[in-house]
Amino acid sequence: MNFQQKLDNIVEKNNSLVCVGLDSSFEKLPEVVKNLENPQFDFNKEIIDATANLVCAYKPNSAFYEALGDRGIMELKKTCDYLHSHYPDIPIILDAKRGDIGNTNDGYVKYAFDYLEVDGLTVMPYMGIESLASFFKREEKGIIIGCHSSNPGAKEIQELIIDGKPLYHIVAEEIMKQFGSNPNCMIFMGATYPEELGKIREIVGNMTFLVPGVGAQEGGVEKVVKMGLNDKKSGMIINSSRGIIFASSGDDFAQRAKEETEKLKNQINSFR
Amino acid sequence: MNFQQKLDNIVEKNNSLVCVGLDSSFEKLPEVVKNLENPQFDFNKEIIDATANLVCAYKPNSAFYEALGDRGIMELKKTCDYLHSHYPDIPIILDAKRGDIGNTNDGYVKYAFDYLEVDGLTVMPYMGIESLASFFKREEKGIIIGCHSSNPGAKEIQELIIDGKPLYHIVAEEIMKQFGSNPNCMIFMGATYPEELGKIREIVGNMTFLVPGVGAQEGGVEKVVKMGLNDKKSGMIINSSRGIIFASSGDDFAQRAKEETEKLKNQINSFR
Repeated sequence: MNFQQKLDNIVEKNNSLVCVGLDSSFEKLPEVVKNLENPQFDFNKEIIDATANLVCAYKPNSAFYEALGDRGIMELKKTCDYLHSHYPDIPIILDAKRGDIGNTNDGYVKYAFDYLEVDGLTVMPYMGIESLASFFKREEKGIIIGCHSSNPGAKEIQELIIDGKPLYHIVAEEIMKQFGSNPNCMIFMGATYPEELGKIREIVGNMTFLVPGVGAQEGGVEKVVKMGLNDKKSGMIINSSRGIIFASSGDDFAQRAKEETEKLKNQINSFR
Repeated sequence: MNFQQKLDNIVEKNNSLVCVGLDSSFEKLPEVVKNLENPQFDFNKEIIDATANLVCAYKPNSAFYEALGDRGIMELKKTCDYLHSHYPDIPIILDAKRGDIGNTNDGYVKYAFDYLEVDGLTVMPYMGIESLASFFKREEKGIIIGCHSSNPGAKEIQELIIDGKPLYHIVAEEIMKQFGSNPNCMIFMGATYPEELGKIREIVGNMTFLVPGVGAQEGGVEKVVKMGLNDKKSGMIINSSRGIIFASSGDDFAQRAKEETEKLKNQINSFR
């Protein structure tokens, strides 16, 4: 089963477009888990158990695990293993924003798909869409290319105008041209720029968007959903990280994460 | 001592602009090291011992270690530890081409500078130069931003024309504007596009370039040196990876790496 099929199945089963971002920075973990043997994994496990019937995907960001070196990588690996064994129908997206030249990207392919065995990976386009060919060799995997990010400085490069069009449009067009026939080719579009989401929807048809930036980064849900949905009233993986996993720093963190996930799920569905 | 000072010292001491890329892909290691307990580290150790008086830096690319997960990360860590203890005057550049939004980049900062304790790190500009602020908080570290890469598809995005100027010029200008006053702010420019190297030299003054792509990727040395040198007949860290470390797949790999490093060093110096 390829990434898009796995995603479609869980979107239907859980009736949800919510992705929970497992950005489990050690420093921010609740005191109650900080002293456990595998604090990041133990935290993730509780979050996952509390939210698994409410989500369409989990998205750990590699940076928060790499911060602790090999020990952090082990905690990320344990998290992925736990998802595989307990919730095999929920896709895992590794948010790593990788991108290098061909021969080197093979290393990142192995990290994501052979070692962690995740279903999808975020990658970056600056080196040229050609440079991403190594990732697309894994045809069944979700390859999610950065198009317009959610941060304040996103405009600096991504909105520069080329022949009357902003760079991120050109990136979307080039992605369509080179890899658009692969149903597992996707892009990410920050929720903080909803108008831009709508413009890209016109370029890429029904392609799935990963949309980070609702919640802590304050992308408004209504506008994001209305601008981003595809013809099938789907086509979005809407991610919230800190707003869900760090909703409480107390012993009730998992319960509060569940409540926030449910709230976001219902809010999104009310606009679908 | 900051990155640029450390670099200047070793460039003078070893009379060399050569950086050896420790792209020690497990699959490509000589049979003689493949069965050792720490094959990537043991291989690197031999390469380092054979070349340490001929180089100005070492540049491991994180991808080749991540490929093996936590085990690979340990081998990279051992390599960095070995350099710190045996060759503390040689800067280590982690080639990782990282780049995410602010809060997330802190994780990569910790991976590179606190866990591996490297001296420099490559990062990418697509998210906006603003997004790189987390990296520049470590003022003494070398932050090396992607400007024009060495791969065939580099042109696709990097050479798009904005108001009569290619994107990579705008990136260089924006880097100068936002972080140019930091002597440890640098850029990387692929050796396979020497004309472009010359144009960027005009924009960024004496800023140091990391120049990958000589050797296996066949960037011609003479043109690269002539186009890239700064006023001080320096300002370049010229990297060769495969052409040096995999010059031989036999037991003589370290000796052959030494010969190739010396050859490149002399070739570069003949054009300085």
